[in-house]
Amino acid sequence: MKKIGVLTSGGDAPGMNAAIRAVVRAALGRGAEVVGFLHGYEGLIGDEAVPLDSMKVGGIITHGGTILRTGRSKHFMTKEGREQALCTLQDHEIEGLVVIGGDGSLKGALTLHEDFGFPVMGVPASIDNDISGTDYSVGFDTAVNTAIEAIDRVRDTAYSHERVFVIEVMGRRNGFIALEAGLAGGAESILIPEVPYSLLDMCTSLRTAAERGKKSSIIIVAEGAARASDIKVFIERNTGFEARYLVLGHMQRGGTPTAFDRVLGLRLGAFAANRLLSGFRGEMAGVDGNGLVAHPLGYALSTQRMVDPEKLLLAEVMAQ
Amino acid sequence: MKKIGVLTSGGDAPGMNAAIRAVVRAALGRGAEVVGFLHGYEGLIGDEAVPLDSMKVGGIITHGGTILRTGRSKHFMTKEGREQALCTLQDHEIEGLVVIGGDGSLKGALTLHEDFGFPVMGVPASIDNDISGTDYSVGFDTAVNTAIEAIDRVRDTAYSHERVFVIEVMGRRNGFIALEAGLAGGAESILIPEVPYSLLDMCTSLRTAAERGKKSSIIIVAEGAARASDIKVFIERNTGFEARYLVLGHMQRGGTPTAFDRVLGLRLGAFAANRLLSGFRGEMAGVDGNGLVAHPLGYALSTQRMVDPEKLLLAEVMAQ
Amino acid sequence: MKKIGVLTSGGDAPGMNAAIRAVVRAALGRGAEVVGFLHGYEGLIGDEAVPLDSMKVGGIITHGGTILRTGRSKHFMTKEGREQALCTLQDHEIEGLVVIGGDGSLKGALTLHEDFGFPVMGVPASIDNDISGTDYSVGFDTAVNTAIEAIDRVRDTAYSHERVFVIEVMGRRNGFIALEAGLAGGAESILIPEVPYSLLDMCTSLRTAAERGKKSSIIIVAEGAARASDIKVFIERNTGFEARYLVLGHMQRGGTPTAFDRVLGLRLGAFAANRLLSGFRGEMAGVDGNGLVAHPLGYALSTQRMVDPEKLLLAEVMAQ
Amino acid sequence: MKKIGVLTSGGDAPGMNAAIRAVVRAALGRGAEVVGFLHGYEGLIGDEAVPLDSMKVGGIITHGGTILRTGRSKHFMTKEGREQALCTLQDHEIEGLVVIGGDGSLKGALTLHEDFGFPVMGVPASIDNDISGTDYSVGFDTAVNTAIEAIDRVRDTAYSHERVFVIEVMGRRNGFIALEAGLAGGAESILIPEVPYSLLDMCTSLRTAAERGKKSSIIIVAEGAARASDIKVFIERNTGFEARYLVLGHMQRGGTPTAFDRVLGLRLGAFAANRLLSGFRGEMAGVDGNGLVAHPLGYALSTQRMVDPEKLLLAEVMAQ
Repeated sequence: MKKIGVLTSGGDAPGMNAAIRAVVRAALGRGAEVVGFLHGYEGLIGDEAVPLDSMKVGGIITHGGTILRTGRSKHFMTKEGREQALCTLQDHEIEGLVVIGGDGSLKGALTLHEDFGFPVMGVPASIDNDISGTDYSVGFDTAVNTAIEAIDRVRDTAYSHERVFVIEVMGRRNGFIALEAGLAGGAESILIPEVPYSLLDMCTSLRTAAERGKKSSIIIVAEGAARASDIKVFIERNTGFEARYLVLGHMQRGGTPTAFDRVLGLRLGAFAANRLLSGFRGEMAGVDGNGLVAHPLGYALSTQRMVDPEKLLLAEVMAQ
Repeated sequence: MKKIGVLTSGGDAPGMNAAIRAVVRAALGRGAEVVGFLHGYEGLIGDEAVPLDSMKVGGIITHGGTILRTGRSKHFMTKEGREQALCTLQDHEIEGLVVIGGDGSLKGALTLHEDFGFPVMGVPASIDNDISGTDYSVGFDTAVNTAIEAIDRVRDTAYSHERVFVIEVMGRRNGFIALEAGLAGGAESILIPEVPYSLLDMCTSLRTAAERGKKSSIIIVAEGAARASDIKVFIERNTGFEARYLVLGHMQRGGTPTAFDRVLGLRLGAFAANRLLSGFRGEMAGVDGNGLVAHPLGYALSTQRMVDPEKLLLAEVMAQ
Repeated sequence: MKKIGVLTSGGDAPGMNAAIRAVVRAALGRGAEVVGFLHGYEGLIGDEAVPLDSMKVGGIITHGGTILRTGRSKHFMTKEGREQALCTLQDHEIEGLVVIGGDGSLKGALTLHEDFGFPVMGVPASIDNDISGTDYSVGFDTAVNTAIEAIDRVRDTAYSHERVFVIEVMGRRNGFIALEAGLAGGAESILIPEVPYSLLDMCTSLRTAAERGKKSSIIIVAEGAARASDIKVFIERNTGFEARYLVLGHMQRGGTPTAFDRVLGLRLGAFAANRLLSGFRGEMAGVDGNGLVAHPLGYALSTQRMVDPEKLLLAEVMAQ
Repeated sequence: MKKIGVLTSGGDAPGMNAAIRAVVRAALGRGAEVVGFLHGYEGLIGDEAVPLDSMKVGGIITHGGTILRTGRSKHFMTKEGREQALCTLQDHEIEGLVVIGGDGSLKGALTLHEDFGFPVMGVPASIDNDISGTDYSVGFDTAVNTAIEAIDRVRDTAYSHERVFVIEVMGRRNGFIALEAGLAGGAESILIPEVPYSLLDMCTSLRTAAERGKKSSIIIVAEGAARASDIKVFIERNTGFEARYLVLGHMQRGGTPTAFDRVLGLRLGAFAANRLLSGFRGEMAGVDGNGLVAHPLGYALSTQRMVDPEKLLLAEVMAQ
């Protein structure tokens, strides 16, 4: 291969820039050229091409977001859209494509591969960490750290005012961020979509804790489990305690990536580029313990990543 | 004076602990004892006294919130409540009181002084920075820095997705945090209660900016000016741009105090204790340029602090 | 078991408090009591016991360092010292001990186990990450993040002044921190004890980069590989470029633990306590991918953890 | 005036980019063009001109360092150098110049003004805060916050190991950073060039504190007062306590500017540009309390800013 493409797609995640940097420098190191496409698949269809050299990816490792910008493309979900995308790739004489993104973006890459046999490689990047076939997705570690900074701040004021705080974190379909941030933030309760919960029991716990002398508590809730505002009202009605709530929202997507996400982005990006240039295709790069692994994209996408029962149990024991 | 009291009241603010530390160590240095009261005026009425020595205020300077906890007391607003508070002070043989807090808390101190001639000193601590007679209140600098960290994070994702973001910051009656954070965060628009604004004009600006190639924008809104969620809807309806919103909420109250708030808390706390022990009373400690000043509490509380027209104009020019 | 002991020993590491919290709450949850010993093995010998309940480990998760303080004990290296330690444990009717620390501390635990068959469990905590049998040690992630914050800061000034900066990070015997921080910080060169390097070649690279237009560079050096001050002098003499150096030092040990280190500390601490209470002994708790593992202490300590060749290669390619 | 120039010179300071942004946008808002010069006065002599428009200063507010880079120019200290600089300005038809920098850089601006009557305006930017005529220089607040982050981190490990730590901060000729960081960091001792100190007395204090039960201490020393490494040795020899030292170095120059430095940079930059365009010249912009002031450059540079006796005394009382 003499030329490969790279794009970021879907929700942005801190560390995507590290992955772009690694794709570019790894490819250059093996004598291949790299073309970036702006705005995800939409830019692939619309030929928003940007030649990438070593200088263009210098200094980007410290920035959140993605220099290639991102987007969600409905057009790419149609056969016509993908044919148009293929045309763009062929016009540029691009022989392989690295896609950096989450679940949906990797599915897009797989379809491109299945439709036309076009060589693709996926790099899992998603603050949700819900992608199978890798211990961690790029961006999760930063998102969790952003969440616990907010939790630490709220704890100061919760303690000073003796109040209950409900903090809503990202996670529409799963509770990975909520569980990790809840553990790290020392939350008294963690509500996630995967596990049934009883708000009445939670209120009982709050009352018991208050009787023991603990008058401030923090409840973490994944957006997919409930709305923080509803939980707040429920608590006030059922306990009489003063409660407040906070929705962290999109703040969790941005920010300087942590060391973990930078190194992860670099490793997976370089690995994906190298595999692609070595003739592999249709794979997703992943991390397994301290090592790297490559799974067929189809396998990675057909398996659902489950929340860890060990951590669920740990959260319960730690809240005592 | 051989014994003084200290309490924190109202909304907590980062740097309150520095002020407590300074009151204690300054008083000890002059041979006086210090008694802290928990939960603000409520604890003064209910005699929740804690003797404070040098060790008890060691290591607290780095923590947000207040080790004395805080509260709002309706009871203290009545003459009976204040008489009860006076009894507590007399029972402990306390000859003077330092009150660390915002507007309302300092008014409480003034009333105590006016009712019974009891020697009080005020230390202005409020993330809102709305207290006259001092350039800065303790906690404002940390709150603004917390807000701009969130803005910086959101900007990454706003840029990557080419979206408009509306961020709601604290400030029910004024726009001090909004204006400062908006300037420091490079906001495209800042909406505050003190200044009339036109959402239609704002939408026109967004469209003009987009035509010039700028596709992501950040709008800062003080909670007293409008709800971020309403602004988001208005923008989407009137421009067709995708918008998102974020409410920073109580996160702005907590967190490790900045150097500025720590030093400010120390200086004002020590100054207040020293003035009190030197026989002054009914004053508020303040900072004026690089120096310290003391104003009569009545004067400080009767003057309304206004948002700075120079900064308003600056924000407008910078948004071009 | 009805009562277990816990101590932290050797160099402190962020996340040790999370591990203490987890040991205490996991044990309490199973009906066992917990006694902490101050100052590591020295406090075990001198019987500096502190009963630990759930309240005592509340709120400690956000703090660096260790509430049990730490120390290095020469006395414990003697048979007499260890016999004295055993006496303390027996006096308190303690039936098992969790040791949180690095290489040397875990060796101490193993010796106690081998000498008297006393049930011990090890939790690997070391900012150096040089312990085998676990993907990560508690404290490493925080130390690397502290290092990259410093690197990010220095890069601003390196860029503005067009200078070469040499930054010395911890790592007397290995380059784990240097390699990880160098990758994450986008260093132009990384010098570690495990890999021979040529300063002349490095200077040639600096000159080549300068000819391409890159006038600022950052070199990361592990303290075991060379002194930053020497490298600075060498560069100035051999290239004529202005160079500066910085030694990060003990700053890398402290600070609020990252989410990663908090969760790791909690998981390993709880796992160690649970294994101990279930009758296992002489093991070290570790993390392997997303799961937990327990290895015999002897095995973990006899294997040397090697720096990852994939990362070494990656660093080289990324520096292009 | 239809065209003005801007440059940053001397040591870089966080917030310089905010000042550049403000100069550019304020001038554009009044219909004037702006040309930036790279590498300080050296680039003015060598005509390293960069036209600056609104887009070029978008997004730079969050970055440390200076996009115009900086330098120290010996050539500009000669009449010939300055004549060459004047030629460059005349070639570009530039009618006024804003210089952003410290003491020496502002002196350069004054000389240009005195030699040729060329209209100049100075913006005080220096992490040292040693410039008269303004309460604060751009960059000081960020440098102090960087220092206290390091102090906070070291305190964790100092506490855990019961050690004395000596931390050397910037300040060759003065102790502004040391005093502010020492107060905010709760240092037990602060050594600065302006105040004579006795190391023997300091050792006595350490011993007294240890007898009272306090076994960890932090000493802050300005680089101009002593070397941290020497103090460490002195303490170990005279007290027998284990001591460690740390030199913060250039890390203090970089990093994301605080809100304070961003707003200060914006205000002073815009004010300087506006004054210049309104016909004023030979002034330095400054902040006085909440307001802005302009002093003749000569006055500002002939007055020496002194360390605040109130803060010195405060530091002493707080260390009790």
